[in-house]
Amino acid sequence: MSKKTIAVLGAGSWGTALSIVLADNGFQVRLWGNKKGQIDEINTSHTNAFYLPGIQLQSAITGIFSLEEALDDIDTAVLAVPTKAVRDVCRQVKAVRKSPLSIIHVTKGIEPGSLMRISEMIEEEMPESLLRDLTVLSGPSHAEEVSLRHPTTVTVSSKKMAAAKKAQDIFMNSNFRVYTNPDIIGVELGGSLKNIIALAAGILDGLGYGDNAKAALMTRGLAEIARLGTKMGANPLTFLGLAGIGDLIVTCTSVHSRNWRAGNMLGKGKKLDDVLEQMGMVVEGVRTTKAAYQLSSRYEVKMPITDALYHVLFEGLDPKEAVDNLMGRLKKHEMEGLMDMLGEQY
Amino acid sequence: MSKKTIAVLGAGSWGTALSIVLADNGFQVRLWGNKKGQIDEINTSHTNAFYLPGIQLQSAITGIFSLEEALDDIDTAVLAVPTKAVRDVCRQVKAVRKSPLSIIHVTKGIEPGSLMRISEMIEEEMPESLLRDLTVLSGPSHAEEVSLRHPTTVTVSSKKMAAAKKAQDIFMNSNFRVYTNPDIIGVELGGSLKNIIALAAGILDGLGYGDNAKAALMTRGLAEIARLGTKMGANPLTFLGLAGIGDLIVTCTSVHSRNWRAGNMLGKGKKLDDVLEQMGMVVEGVRTTKAAYQLSSRYEVKMPITDALYHVLFEGLDPKEAVDNLMGRLKKHEMEGLMDMLGEQY
Repeated sequence: MSKKTIAVLGAGSWGTALSIVLADNGFQVRLWGNKKGQIDEINTSHTNAFYLPGIQLQSAITGIFSLEEALDDIDTAVLAVPTKAVRDVCRQVKAVRKSPLSIIHVTKGIEPGSLMRISEMIEEEMPESLLRDLTVLSGPSHAEEVSLRHPTTVTVSSKKMAAAKKAQDIFMNSNFRVYTNPDIIGVELGGSLKNIIALAAGILDGLGYGDNAKAALMTRGLAEIARLGTKMGANPLTFLGLAGIGDLIVTCTSVHSRNWRAGNMLGKGKKLDDVLEQMGMVVEGVRTTKAAYQLSSRYEVKMPITDALYHVLFEGLDPKEAVDNLMGRLKKHEMEGLMDMLGEQY
Repeated sequence: MSKKTIAVLGAGSWGTALSIVLADNGFQVRLWGNKKGQIDEINTSHTNAFYLPGIQLQSAITGIFSLEEALDDIDTAVLAVPTKAVRDVCRQVKAVRKSPLSIIHVTKGIEPGSLMRISEMIEEEMPESLLRDLTVLSGPSHAEEVSLRHPTTVTVSSKKMAAAKKAQDIFMNSNFRVYTNPDIIGVELGGSLKNIIALAAGILDGLGYGDNAKAALMTRGLAEIARLGTKMGANPLTFLGLAGIGDLIVTCTSVHSRNWRAGNMLGKGKKLDDVLEQMGMVVEGVRTTKAAYQLSSRYEVKMPITDALYHVLFEGLDPKEAVDNLMGRLKKHEMEGLMDMLGEQY
């Protein structure tokens, strides 16, 4: 069993950036993807130019097209695929893997319909006998910056603290700081739900509103994320940490953010289908908005921003009308909304 | 007594932008300043070009050089001067005003040495017989955007709810949304202390760190603001609202922010004295850092970012060294710091 070899499943921006971190930490990395041309590019020119333009990959990173080979004789796999591919990849894994595997997932989403978090989807797909540890890694971490070794801080969480600590040891280095947090529900929800607010922030920017309005939107957005999350069993403090407000800030204010960019195009009057086609990458916030809209109804939590965005994305509501409604309907007494937020705790 | 006439004391960017809001709301505004040339410019060309370039002031705004005339026969004054001028202007007010006055202050600072908030300084200077209501207005509100009628949300707070509601009625309009919050300590501290984090964020940007690092800094900054504020008697929830995280976001991420700009120049290697001279406007965060450094010692609260910035500003610590120390020293277990944050409440 090779302790210093690790598989990264998913060769998008984030899987590739994390491969660079792992290679910096002395691992041999098997970067698995399902596009032959991309795998060849990784192995011949040591680049993944569509996802991380201008970045040179270390020779310790090998592109692999066969999942069976990627998982052969290793301990741990990093799962870095979009939400809608999680179940399918889990099924492929269990078809080729016969011994227990530890999974560190780095996907930020919620499944519409089932309303499951990623770790719940993985647990549903993988037999207990095949799943050793299950950990999530999340936080304010644009792949582009991580691949450039810009200082970055993230949170890892697992039901088992020992598993989180193991993930911390695997990823921690001087540029990539990893903190543990026992609240896996909050860490997964924070990373997922902030994409909704990022889409809305992009719309606001696309419509030409200013920084004052965006700060208000982000503040209200955090409150509605925390309201829902707390009802779902998360620790409200998690939303004040890296996986909450930290990730929200970076996603709403950075040009690197796909969700922000998609929202920005919507705000400028483009249609959703055209935006998604032009992006050419997964915009998780779109499906997450649908899931969160369903969650707000199931848990009876008011989520005005999610609600407005749902109507913009799926029911043709004019973005400007949605934003104007939102700005007007905020409560007069600020503490009311905040008191709601943490439930009975105040 | 003219209910529809109001005095704004201080003709900087913020006082002028708020005068525009008040004029939009039907008030005659007496905008008091102590620079003769600026007052003449306001009255002749209806501009205040140094502070709000390109903005046309309504004819309802009159520049006034005499404080006695500005305060004659009115109910309410908006106090919009830098922290270091608050006491002096209060003394001038009590020298000319013989009947009770309501004051809405909009200054974001803490006095080094006395470690008083602005409302405490005003209460100390003004005899009870002269001070009717005392209210603070704060929140994410760049003057430039307010003067352009971009949607903006702010918080007002007072020891007396009726006073806060009166201030809300005076300022509220469709672009400028005003919310009440009973926690005057938290509202004043949130607005003041975020300038420290904005200076630090500017340094980070000036040094070329990325968005991931800045989001981490802002997250940790909010935690240290809330830790101190809670010890000083604020409601921790206030730091999750507009006067807390809202104002922090806008000040750290907008090019409009003076504190961010000053920090940015420091990060690029300029000396503090040169930066302040080049700005030509008050950078409140510099003195606030000194005050917060003293507060953290008085209240025995760990404030690593404030501490690092204090050493950069006043003891010649190299900014890069300070940032690298900060990134390295964060606790391994994220929840520890967050648990600290809200004291015994969790």
